[in-house]
Amino acid sequence: MKLEEKTVRTEHIFKGKVIDLDVETVILPDGKKATREIVRHHGAVGIICITADEKMILVKQWRQPLKKAVFEIPAGKIDPGEDPLTTAARELNEEVRLSAQNFKYVASFYTSPGFADEKMFLYHAQGMTTVEKKLARDDGEFLNIFELSMEEVDEELKKGMICDSKTLMAIWYWKMNRIKEQ
Amino acid sequence: MKLEEKTVRTEHIFKGKVIDLDVETVILPDGKKATREIVRHHGAVGIICITADEKMILVKQWRQPLKKAVFEIPAGKIDPGEDPLTTAARELNEEVRLSAQNFKYVASFYTSPGFADEKMFLYHAQGMTTVEKKLARDDGEFLNIFELSMEEVDEELKKGMICDSKTLMAIWYWKMNRIKEQ
Repeated sequence: MKLEEKTVRTEHIFKGKVIDLDVETVILPDGKKATREIVRHHGAVGIICITADEKMILVKQWRQPLKKAVFEIPAGKIDPGEDPLTTAARELNEEVRLSAQNFKYVASFYTSPGFADEKMFLYHAQGMTTVEKKLARDDGEFLNIFELSMEEVDEELKKGMICDSKTLMAIWYWKMNRIKEQ
Repeated sequence: MKLEEKTVRTEHIFKGKVIDLDVETVILPDGKKATREIVRHHGAVGIICITADEKMILVKQWRQPLKKAVFEIPAGKIDPGEDPLTTAARELNEEVRLSAQNFKYVASFYTSPGFADEKMFLYHAQGMTTVEKKLARDDGEFLNIFELSMEEVDEELKKGMICDSKTLMAIWYWKMNRIKEQ
């Protein structure tokens, strides 16, 4: 079966700080027309940080779409045209005041390909040290930093306080590989 | 540090078939104002299906946000008010013409909590049989069905033809548990 959809019209609905929204009219494989709602996003990185005493570094921050504060791995948006590794280094400094000797690539994935083009790059930070020069956080960015053991992470998972795709993948990666700082 | 943001205004930007978009004005913990762009979505389910000969059932479909056809696990949107297990049974029939004796809960997660409230429920379908009564697919839904071995899955991952969060998590779950139909 042919699958390709051909765009015949793009309507720009919204241009925001984080996302844009377009509605595309497409021709389906059977020749009929349909509309597709598409959220545009520059992509993001998430960083897996495991300390020498086998704790995961997490930030707790308010997520307005969920109307609660949750634990997530350090993460942030890629600036337009920025290399994801540059984003990773910047966010690791901004959010948890650490630098890394190496960012090991773990995975990349589209968070929700049905309606969004956001791509997430997941790295494991190796050789972490405290930064001397702290970068300024984004306007309106408030967070608390935590180090949780695997048992504490499981507890927060159960309570629904860890509940997003990148952090769940980071935890599964940790459990599969039992990684820690040397 | 206090983290909570208080909503003082909600502007409804867009109401679509799949998503709605709101912009909320919030009061930050420091008393300043900011805006939050929020995509509303009713949630979705993804279903892990492993055959008795240890192959993963995947559907290939066009994703307009990515402008390509990719392999994903069977999945679909939750209708407003629908129980996710009902969605899972419906989508398993609609997409791959199977029913399951049991849907084992694997995980649930917000796909992108920075800008969307979409929650994904991941299940493992156990005791699969071919359905007698096929449910109609959604309008504009075109897909091809595949069964891939773990080696073939790894190959498609490398080629970027498997590239979304739920399917990557399904594959990691498969590798961690080496599940198959009894």
